[in-house]
Amino acid sequence: MPLTIFVTFIRQQYVHMEKNSRRTFNTMLAKGIGATALAAHLPLSCAMGNNQKKKKLGIALVGLGSYSTYQLAPALQDTRHCYLAGIVTGTAAKEKIWANRYNIPQENIYNYENFDTIADNDAIDVVYVVLPNSMHAEFSVRAAEAGKHVICEKPMAMNVAECDAIIDACNKAGVKLGMGYRLHSEPYTQEVKRFVREKTFGDVLYVSADAAYRSTGNPNQWRLNRKLSGGGALMNMGVYAIQSAIYSTGENPVSVTAQEFSTRPAYFKDTDETITAQFEFASGAVANMMTSHNVRANRLYASCVNGWFELDPASTYIPLAGRTSRGELDFPQESQQKLQMDDFASHVLYGTPKLAPGEMGKRDMIIVEAIYKSIAEGGKKQQMNFEPKYGFGG
Amino acid sequence: MPLTIFVTFIRQQYVHMEKNSRRTFNTMLAKGIGATALAAHLPLSCAMGNNQKKKKLGIALVGLGSYSTYQLAPALQDTRHCYLAGIVTGTAAKEKIWANRYNIPQENIYNYENFDTIADNDAIDVVYVVLPNSMHAEFSVRAAEAGKHVICEKPMAMNVAECDAIIDACNKAGVKLGMGYRLHSEPYTQEVKRFVREKTFGDVLYVSADAAYRSTGNPNQWRLNRKLSGGGALMNMGVYAIQSAIYSTGENPVSVTAQEFSTRPAYFKDTDETITAQFEFASGAVANMMTSHNVRANRLYASCVNGWFELDPASTYIPLAGRTSRGELDFPQESQQKLQMDDFASHVLYGTPKLAPGEMGKRDMIIVEAIYKSIAEGGKKQQMNFEPKYGFGG
Repeated sequence: MPLTIFVTFIRQQYVHMEKNSRRTFNTMLAKGIGATALAAHLPLSCAMGNNQKKKKLGIALVGLGSYSTYQLAPALQDTRHCYLAGIVTGTAAKEKIWANRYNIPQENIYNYENFDTIADNDAIDVVYVVLPNSMHAEFSVRAAEAGKHVICEKPMAMNVAECDAIIDACNKAGVKLGMGYRLHSEPYTQEVKRFVREKTFGDVLYVSADAAYRSTGNPNQWRLNRKLSGGGALMNMGVYAIQSAIYSTGENPVSVTAQEFSTRPAYFKDTDETITAQFEFASGAVANMMTSHNVRANRLYASCVNGWFELDPASTYIPLAGRTSRGELDFPQESQQKLQMDDFASHVLYGTPKLAPGEMGKRDMIIVEAIYKSIAEGGKKQQMNFEPKYGFGG
Repeated sequence: MPLTIFVTFIRQQYVHMEKNSRRTFNTMLAKGIGATALAAHLPLSCAMGNNQKKKKLGIALVGLGSYSTYQLAPALQDTRHCYLAGIVTGTAAKEKIWANRYNIPQENIYNYENFDTIADNDAIDVVYVVLPNSMHAEFSVRAAEAGKHVICEKPMAMNVAECDAIIDACNKAGVKLGMGYRLHSEPYTQEVKRFVREKTFGDVLYVSADAAYRSTGNPNQWRLNRKLSGGGALMNMGVYAIQSAIYSTGENPVSVTAQEFSTRPAYFKDTDETITAQFEFASGAVANMMTSHNVRANRLYASCVNGWFELDPASTYIPLAGRTSRGELDFPQESQQKLQMDDFASHVLYGTPKLAPGEMGKRDMIIVEAIYKSIAEGGKKQQMNFEPKYGFGG
């Protein structure tokens, strides 16, 4: 298109760009870099003309374990703004099965070695990293460097340093980064966030958040192997409880104390089994959480000045349920993963709010590290110093 | 009655006597003390012949605050094994009101000064101490010394030493001592105890126990005055959470860690506001509790190997409600206080099991002190060394 029209177009798109992209873009403008170079640097939604805009983004799932198999791939059959375009797997036998089941062309199938050539594949717009935790950082960074938007499963990475690496890589590449925090797209959770935002029950005073299941399967599964998982219940289910505490108060914690309990050390020989933790918030709210791989619990409860609200279950794939001091909650049930991936795709395509940014994943990992530190120091209180809305999504 | 018949009678009654009474009784027998002296020493149920046995025990309420006024006195209109026979009050104006409302004869009305003359009043069999915590020990001991059976409201006293004084006084006087723990007579709670006893859902692995309400009334109320209460939320509501943790596991804890939170120090200037605590049990079970005078929460939840059970509310006067992994619980609703006082009276009259012995109150106070100590030591784990069934009732 002619340069003048192109400049008008990118001005329209400018407001939807990631802050860092805007910064880079401004720098490039200041340096007098030409339109072609500019276009190459713009995120997908900017680089495509409106009339050329894709209706659906192509997603490639990296890692074809049970979450991809039984949640994400089926959900991607029903998504409006994205679809299952490709796969990346380390297990050759899965290639044909998935290709047949989901009609995936051979050119959209990658393994871990040739993954980086995905940069040349226009059919793939988003890479969804669904690997064991130890591989999140590597593949999120490689996806960003290939110019693909990134969805990273929870927990974001093995530690805060890896979270920074992912965020930096996405910023540098000018691609979008979202966390696989499906609950932010889930109607019961969105209602909780509305209660908090609108103070439906007044200020929140206390949150109880439990997220736990009883693991009795193969003791060699990757979640129980510290080298692959980075930690046990806290890294896996604990992140849900941390999330509950934060979206049920609308605040980041200012301190945390934590305790660890071990009752089946022969089974949980490498990772944490049961952890309790307490948060203080600047408003004065307090949260008490429990996470475990040894017991079943799945609930958030918030006591407010003028009432209370509760979700139980609060973070399962199966339909959530909830009630408040004013009565039952009742929302239509849809695949949470479908809603989540559509929300991310819609953000990329249309600039709708990003519900779970990478900074949210990093914030939660900072809290995970503080919990482990408190435990290591005999329950000593760890102060935290987040910007008030650091990590909050749109 | 002739001595031979009397001796036969007291042999029949012997099995129902308190252990200490039996010991004293044996000593008296060994010393050749006569039947009249023996009879004088026997507890009420023994000292009366079967055909003379009272149908209903006379209860005197000591302290006519809101709990006596709105819970105990109304309940005593419906009790089968006891009735409201007398009152003890420090407020002269209440004497006539209560006398008229409940048809209490003048000779059954006492104040704190002449209380000890209750020893001469055969119409009063049981003294129920419903005073501020700071007065529990004094009046429980004076009641025992007056030869009356004692029901002591929760928390048992200001500290463990006072609990010992009450227990010793009752043992010495050969009178029965029970705690005002109404929930042990309440059907949902009894069902929970049955689940634990019969392992209905397998071994209990985890208990979440919250007992809290939001106090916004007169900041000078006795519960917020340490000299009268001995402590804040933990002494008041915390005892319910401790109780929940114990009857939901069927065990006494072997360790405790605890944390304190203060968000309205101007209001809670003298007593603890919000406390979280974690218990370990010998079986490996873990409990996580919260108590507060600043927030509303009232629930027990237990995760077991083969399912779960939950009461919510778990300790209110209003009807409890419950559900399990197998469905809803549904029990008929009756006054908890009525059931409680009838159970105690039935224990005195007929030797039915004592559901909440004084040792239970003492055990809970040992745990309260351990929680305060853990808080004072920055959350340090406190080991506890109870006999496995110390404090458990029948």
